[in-house]
Amino acid sequence: MLGRRARLLAIWVLAAVSTTALGQAAEIASSSETPPASLAYDLVRDLTTLFGPRPAGSAAEAAAARWGSDKMKALGFQGVTIEPFPLLRWTPGETRVELIGDPAQRLVATPLGGLVAGPPVEAPVALFRSYDAFLKSSPAEVRGRIVAVVEPVRRAINGDGYVEAAPARARGPAEAMARGAVGFVVRSLGTHQDNVANSGASMTLPRPFPAFALSPAATDQIERAAGLGPVRMRLESSAGWAGAGTSQNVVGTIPGSDPDAAPIIIGAHLDSWEQGTGAIDDGFGIAAVTAAATRILRSGKTPRHTIHLVWFGAEEVSQPGALRDFVGARAFTARHASDVKRALVVAESDWGGGRVTRVTLPPGTSDETVERVRGALGSLGLPVAVGGPGPGVAEIGVLAAAGAPLLRLHQDATGLFDVHHTPNDVLSRVDPASLEQNVTAWERVISAIADVR
Amino acid sequence: MLGRRARLLAIWVLAAVSTTALGQAAEIASSSETPPASLAYDLVRDLTTLFGPRPAGSAAEAAAARWGSDKMKALGFQGVTIEPFPLLRWTPGETRVELIGDPAQRLVATPLGGLVAGPPVEAPVALFRSYDAFLKSSPAEVRGRIVAVVEPVRRAINGDGYVEAAPARARGPAEAMARGAVGFVVRSLGTHQDNVANSGASMTLPRPFPAFALSPAATDQIERAAGLGPVRMRLESSAGWAGAGTSQNVVGTIPGSDPDAAPIIIGAHLDSWEQGTGAIDDGFGIAAVTAAATRILRSGKTPRHTIHLVWFGAEEVSQPGALRDFVGARAFTARHASDVKRALVVAESDWGGGRVTRVTLPPGTSDETVERVRGALGSLGLPVAVGGPGPGVAEIGVLAAAGAPLLRLHQDATGLFDVHHTPNDVLSRVDPASLEQNVTAWERVISAIADVR
Repeated sequence: MLGRRARLLAIWVLAAVSTTALGQAAEIASSSETPPASLAYDLVRDLTTLFGPRPAGSAAEAAAARWGSDKMKALGFQGVTIEPFPLLRWTPGETRVELIGDPAQRLVATPLGGLVAGPPVEAPVALFRSYDAFLKSSPAEVRGRIVAVVEPVRRAINGDGYVEAAPARARGPAEAMARGAVGFVVRSLGTHQDNVANSGASMTLPRPFPAFALSPAATDQIERAAGLGPVRMRLESSAGWAGAGTSQNVVGTIPGSDPDAAPIIIGAHLDSWEQGTGAIDDGFGIAAVTAAATRILRSGKTPRHTIHLVWFGAEEVSQPGALRDFVGARAFTARHASDVKRALVVAESDWGGGRVTRVTLPPGTSDETVERVRGALGSLGLPVAVGGPGPGVAEIGVLAAAGAPLLRLHQDATGLFDVHHTPNDVLSRVDPASLEQNVTAWERVISAIADVR
Repeated sequence: MLGRRARLLAIWVLAAVSTTALGQAAEIASSSETPPASLAYDLVRDLTTLFGPRPAGSAAEAAAARWGSDKMKALGFQGVTIEPFPLLRWTPGETRVELIGDPAQRLVATPLGGLVAGPPVEAPVALFRSYDAFLKSSPAEVRGRIVAVVEPVRRAINGDGYVEAAPARARGPAEAMARGAVGFVVRSLGTHQDNVANSGASMTLPRPFPAFALSPAATDQIERAAGLGPVRMRLESSAGWAGAGTSQNVVGTIPGSDPDAAPIIIGAHLDSWEQGTGAIDDGFGIAAVTAAATRILRSGKTPRHTIHLVWFGAEEVSQPGALRDFVGARAFTARHASDVKRALVVAESDWGGGRVTRVTLPPGTSDETVERVRGALGSLGLPVAVGGPGPGVAEIGVLAAAGAPLLRLHQDATGLFDVHHTPNDVLSRVDPASLEQNVTAWERVISAIADVR
């Protein structure tokens, strides 16, 4: 496998050199191998092919970070560093969720991230059509039962249907435990009708409590069964903590011409859930920002502001204590406190595989900078505004909380929650044309901002 | 659960009576429960809700057969009988299929039906882009290796892309074993891009041999990895025989006015694969033929020819010895030899959830009968011809082999292999309008034929 990676890296380096020297047409003819036609697509293809799922703290995530570090060096980034940090690893283990009856019916389910399932439980189901209805229920309605919240997720171009629904997954288990329930199941936070369940993090709890996302088909099944009479479920899983581990951020730099100018920090996250290969979430983001930064590197012009490119580790994992989520971003912020505090902007690509639809610059951005960005975007026809964060702020929200101004390249998230955190988050779901549009938008926005005085 | 079924049956009987007496508008107002708006849809809904997956010989299949028997009686069929027959049960067990490397990558896979996996194997992969290329390979190319056939399935309105591809699944393991391979994987016989694997039967083998269908995403992954260097896989599964069991056919009759007239036999299969709930394959077929026969029952006219409605058991299972597949159809043929031999026509609905696109009557059908069927179909606008069987002949092929003339209501199978034998074969994939069109087509064709002299 090392031989394969070394070979691939050689092809990459050749491609990077030939592109700089001869342009893309020459590059395609420069090797008997088919060289990369698109740096971004090749990044996400090779990341998913070589490493597959990359759970936080896993050997796959660590190997992908080493590969990323080699890649950044080969592409010409400076000061490339792998920055390790500790975390508790979590494993989904093996799961068996069933309707109990005559006969039993097994359901497609996945454990909520960060929860320890504990011993199997079997109990009657207390079904709620909405998370709000559950929150308004009395403890008597749920005590000794398995709470089932079957509320569907609204499809929305900016993905805010997911944001609205997320508390049911994040806080539902805690609320159910507090009311004396013995388990919790929630309809997958997905807009699809596939019989797959969406993974996703939940608040950690002080003691074992089985909590799962069910596929839409499984949720429909429970609703129909509950319409006919009382329903019982059995929840069994070995989900839980898998011991101490290490994750890491990978950082590379394009040095600016003015060392005193505030730095720009752009990134995406390298880790993924275990079911797919994290092609959309967040291989797409890794590929988009890395390819855009590489175009800036290759442009032959030195930006005024230094640009830091960050592949964050450990986004897709809860840690004990709610404050310690986004542990990669926290580690980066702690290590690079002065850069974060004085940053010109921070930005990340982590909202799926859709096209960039608009750009928002941090509050207080000068009219001149707004016009500069608008001009740079040119034929892409994207609206540019000054405004707040909007949905989908993850790692970069941690940096923003530490004082960094937030730049957003908003994406069309209409189809994101059809694959987000499911087995279908694989390379075939990456649209190369959409990825190229993202790369171009990032290149132009960051180039424009990087020359601001 | 028995209480639930009894309650549901009471609703059904009420609905059947009220529909006969008062018509559908009155039926909808006749109960504080919402009564069935469509007999066919309610059949497939309740079948999948109450019993879920129904593997051949399972308790779920048996319970669904008892429910079906009660249902047929309640709807007014005569001589309703559950006819048991023995079989060997097969279980997919638990499966773990991986690319071996640094790091390893787990792949989505499902064992091929009827095979015994035996102990885990780990070996280099011999990859073939087509089944034909594999068949042309030399033993030296595959000996000691895991054969991977990655050929995709062609999408086709009549589903013959599946028929073309089926030998790779059915015979591939035997061919691989004969050449000294230690395992076999095949791209799922599906037209989808989902990261799910399609189950399906294979020829049984004289000794354990691990053989699996891989998801399209997993197959793509192997292809890409093989482009970078040698690939190794590990196959582990507890798939195999689960002991002697019993399956059953359920038969009900609409007696004809002429006891000497040749009977009509129509059916569908009750069993399903284990991953979904068999809503499309073949709950849809069960619902279509049963609802159509019920309309004929309720029409107030007695057909000249007796009509037998059969819910076949155990279609979706191989049995040791290739001749013993379709064991439910073989049991029916053995038990009803004279009816099968003298049948006017035999027909089944088992080609997905698409609309009926055309009708073929058995070779030798008189012009008068062709015209009668054409006239009965009326506004449905379906072509009627005299011709051969075409793709998708399963149980009914066994009856045809015993001498029965084959009637086909061909369906649009364009989307069938997006869900066929996958976890996505669930109720949400049933299109109620398509189901109603099928019911109407079946009712009209069978009504027309049932009065032939």
